[in-house]
Amino acid sequence: MTPTVQNMFAGVPGTLPEEQFEELIRGGQFRLERIVSTGHVTPAGQWYDQDQDEWVLVLRGAAQLQFDGEAEPLPLGPGDFVLIPARCRHRVQWTDPGEPTVWLALHFTPRSPVSA
Amino acid sequence: MTPTVQNMFAGVPGTLPEEQFEELIRGGQFRLERIVSTGHVTPAGQWYDQDQDEWVLVLRGAAQLQFDGEAEPLPLGPGDFVLIPARCRHRVQWTDPGEPTVWLALHFTPRSPVSA
Repeated sequence: MTPTVQNMFAGVPGTLPEEQFEELIRGGQFRLERIVSTGHVTPAGQWYDQDQDEWVLVLRGAAQLQFDGEAEPLPLGPGDFVLIPARCRHRVQWTDPGEPTVWLALHFTPRSPVSA
Repeated sequence: MTPTVQNMFAGVPGTLPEEQFEELIRGGQFRLERIVSTGHVTPAGQWYDQDQDEWVLVLRGAAQLQFDGEAEPLPLGPGDFVLIPARCRHRVQWTDPGEPTVWLALHFTPRSPVSA
């Protein structure tokens, strides 16, 4: 049986009431998901503070990630990727309100104990 | 310390003597890699026959995957992804000789025993 093809940009809505998270694969120690943002940001004062490492890639659009303690956010465009270690507090400071931003995120259990 | 940004299309050479494989992350049960092809194909008569599942995404360029027993190859372009189960024999039938094809491949251990 031939595997079927899907596309990362299929079914990407132009606007969304909330960020859209779609699980693509779940493995024993990882989870791969597509995220679509249309101008969404992490609410002010809130931070992601995750148990798992996260490798995230921008496929389309534009975003800014803010890391706790840093003065300036990190701008991201198509093809840009970043490894966010577990417990590294961050928030989505900005996503392009003019076009959907499509992310690919790989969440995974760190191989070695986290030294915070 | 702020995580650093890298780009999937940075350092992509226009031509290569052989396909380029670059490991991005290695986890306990998975491996994420970037592959760059510049017209490369799997040698005639050879097949990939892998122990692990492979989820593969074309980020840029164009390719055709041939699956054993199928009459026609599967064409892939930017954003297209496919899950190739372990033991599913396949080969790269064609990649665009005119521009680099950049793939993202996630190899991982199947969660349940493979029933061939």
